[in-house]
Amino acid sequence: MLSSNHFDPHHSALFTDLYELTMMQAYYAEGMTAQAAFELFFRKLPKNRNYIMTAGLNEVLDYLENLRFMDAELDWLRQQGQFSEAFLQTLRDFRFTGDVHAVPEGTIVFENEPVVQIVAPIPQAQLVETYVLNQIHLQSVAATKAARVVTAAQGRNVVDFGSRRSHGTDAALKVARTSYLAGAAGTSNVAAGRLYDIPIFGTMAHSYVQAHPDEMAAFKAFTREFPETTLLVDTYDTLKGVRRVIELARQLGDDFKVKSIRLDSGDLTELARVSRQLLDEAGLAQMKILASSGLDEYKLTELLAAGAPIDGFGVGTELAVSGDAPDIDFSYKLVAYEDQPRMKLSSKKMNPPGRKQVFRIIEDGQMTRDVIAQHGETLSGEALLQPVMRNGQRLDSSRIPLTKAREHAQNQLELLPPKLTALERVEEGYPVEISAALQETTRQLQQELEQKMRE
Amino acid sequence: MLSSNHFDPHHSALFTDLYELTMMQAYYAEGMTAQAAFELFFRKLPKNRNYIMTAGLNEVLDYLENLRFMDAELDWLRQQGQFSEAFLQTLRDFRFTGDVHAVPEGTIVFENEPVVQIVAPIPQAQLVETYVLNQIHLQSVAATKAARVVTAAQGRNVVDFGSRRSHGTDAALKVARTSYLAGAAGTSNVAAGRLYDIPIFGTMAHSYVQAHPDEMAAFKAFTREFPETTLLVDTYDTLKGVRRVIELARQLGDDFKVKSIRLDSGDLTELARVSRQLLDEAGLAQMKILASSGLDEYKLTELLAAGAPIDGFGVGTELAVSGDAPDIDFSYKLVAYEDQPRMKLSSKKMNPPGRKQVFRIIEDGQMTRDVIAQHGETLSGEALLQPVMRNGQRLDSSRIPLTKAREHAQNQLELLPPKLTALERVEEGYPVEISAALQETTRQLQQELEQKMRE
Repeated sequence: MLSSNHFDPHHSALFTDLYELTMMQAYYAEGMTAQAAFELFFRKLPKNRNYIMTAGLNEVLDYLENLRFMDAELDWLRQQGQFSEAFLQTLRDFRFTGDVHAVPEGTIVFENEPVVQIVAPIPQAQLVETYVLNQIHLQSVAATKAARVVTAAQGRNVVDFGSRRSHGTDAALKVARTSYLAGAAGTSNVAAGRLYDIPIFGTMAHSYVQAHPDEMAAFKAFTREFPETTLLVDTYDTLKGVRRVIELARQLGDDFKVKSIRLDSGDLTELARVSRQLLDEAGLAQMKILASSGLDEYKLTELLAAGAPIDGFGVGTELAVSGDAPDIDFSYKLVAYEDQPRMKLSSKKMNPPGRKQVFRIIEDGQMTRDVIAQHGETLSGEALLQPVMRNGQRLDSSRIPLTKAREHAQNQLELLPPKLTALERVEEGYPVEISAALQETTRQLQQELEQKMRE
Repeated sequence: MLSSNHFDPHHSALFTDLYELTMMQAYYAEGMTAQAAFELFFRKLPKNRNYIMTAGLNEVLDYLENLRFMDAELDWLRQQGQFSEAFLQTLRDFRFTGDVHAVPEGTIVFENEPVVQIVAPIPQAQLVETYVLNQIHLQSVAATKAARVVTAAQGRNVVDFGSRRSHGTDAALKVARTSYLAGAAGTSNVAAGRLYDIPIFGTMAHSYVQAHPDEMAAFKAFTREFPETTLLVDTYDTLKGVRRVIELARQLGDDFKVKSIRLDSGDLTELARVSRQLLDEAGLAQMKILASSGLDEYKLTELLAAGAPIDGFGVGTELAVSGDAPDIDFSYKLVAYEDQPRMKLSSKKMNPPGRKQVFRIIEDGQMTRDVIAQHGETLSGEALLQPVMRNGQRLDSSRIPLTKAREHAQNQLELLPPKLTALERVEEGYPVEISAALQETTRQLQQELEQKMRE
């Protein structure tokens, strides 16, 4: 157990924007503690994306359940000199007591569809905005990228090699987690392997080869410790490296158990082709060829289209940072207060008010259209938002093992219309409709607000 | 204090790629524990970047100093079934005992210049690769983006609003830290404020206004709690919002202490201009205008070129993810083992071998060129790499308070040739030369390796 004054900034109640705390104090001072409903959704698909795979819910629910202000944190807030003593006293006993509905991790979603819906006294629902967005955003960016890479690999293994280039330790862990969720075979990150019980993979680095007198010495030494390993063949000259592996097989005979070689530079298609030929001719048809080196879904597609005989991919930087679309415009908006629907009027950022539900129509094994409806409406189709927390306690049904979530993600990708797996944006995206009742509520509230503005 | 079995994945010795551990075991098994030198550098500036501001060293040194394998971590490794008992026993007493040289945080660096140089027994130096790269990469990506945004703000305040869109909690904290390092006024992230002693800033959100019966009620309630606040004016109609602030000033008289308004949508130049005029006409010339809403260095440059009377900027997503250049090709390469220079031959990724030093020539208050030299060479100019850790212990000189590092970063930006502050890549970048001695060593080793390849 942690002492109550250990400051863990990654899970602290202080992991929030300052304005959440000032608004909280104001709400309490005004006695505004009625139920508010906030919804988290994105408005526009990022560049090159036809769908988003959501993730991050498990982390969010754990956070909400354990959210506390520690004494040392309150002391620090007091020292900042801008908070009232009454407010700080309120925070001492703070607990998140709200209800949460959400779409399960691994679910595919589209523009304007609520992914997480929080109903709680408004100061509570306001406080958690920053953390909830931070985690759903990161993990959905990463899961979506991974889903694209896994799809492009056409059944071949994808392993997350991205930890060195991900944006920090949390991103490295979550990229490992969501890559696995989206169908990757595993990760190179050992801490993620332990934390999430994900298979871990590793080969060898150029430095290991370079530290030895020559490449053969390195291969021999490494296979003595790890007979079933992968040997990296491109430190000096890729094809000579492959020939050296073959020579090692000849020398070791039945003791040769090396499973694969890894190519990490040069023309991967050509090198894979010649390496495959060399291995096959040497009677090493069972050996696999793995590739890495600046890969992403675009390059995987090219390699496989060119017929490169590659059996598995280590994907690093691009999986880690999602370079072509590193962010999604997720926001967390007040949609109701005291059961009255709310909306923002200015600019073009108008969104339907009130709590919502999304119904998905599945026909012939494919998702065909979604309808965003008012909470309480019953339409045909599958309801995407499910209860996951009540009165601040996770529901048992929300504790979905990662392997189960991974099956769900796989199933979602199978339900996805094939044209939406295109790497670039398709002209006509997935149809998302607004129910008649929700359209009517939106129209009415807009009129009311415009009327008020004229007064 | 944490119990010795608390698993903190963010600072765990398991935060590493699996191959670092397998290579370690092989090194130990072979008795290869001689000193290795690894250097961390980038090969190519990312798109739109003419310089990189390095950061992350402080975190790296703390990590190295505290690196331990906990019993529960070793038990978990044992369960994976691929490590030898001898190796696991070695890890029980593992300590990082190496020496580190590095460029101070906030220093501007260019292609191929070593940023961190680690000299340690090779198993130790190998293990730490993943974490060292992860932190220097993230923090340098973020510091460089922040330096660009701060430069574009031309002396106006920049505040980090990015926590909701940064890639996870670690990135949020480090983006806050490096934004401040690079000259931002502070952050909205309260945990970062506490962790790094950075000024924290906050205004109010649309949800607060929407939860109230009308905008005026929200303004009044919020200023009662926080008289010197910033009021967000664009929830319904920006200019009506501004007029409401003016009306509040009239009603409160001398009790009106509101410091600023925030614009968060629409045509910011035009809205700022009219808002400024309205405030000035109302005798509120002392009030500031802050802006946010999808800002980055490109938009700041446009706004200020158009003469927008904006006094400060809240910058979110783009500061958080560095969307136009979310990664830098930092790598960590073996350059010497047992005092013998090492290099990789294959492909185009050739780098000069051996430990290095970088000398920077400064003339007339500007950096004019750098020379990458061999360790031990003494050339004219300022030596960038400084000793920061000896035998696994941080040197006192390496404990640089963030405010000092911020001054150094400011100084570096002043030394930078003005043309390199361009937002796009300039044709002729900063000159980085290789010393004659290093060129000769590189030529010799290349010959030796090519000779060996022919054998």
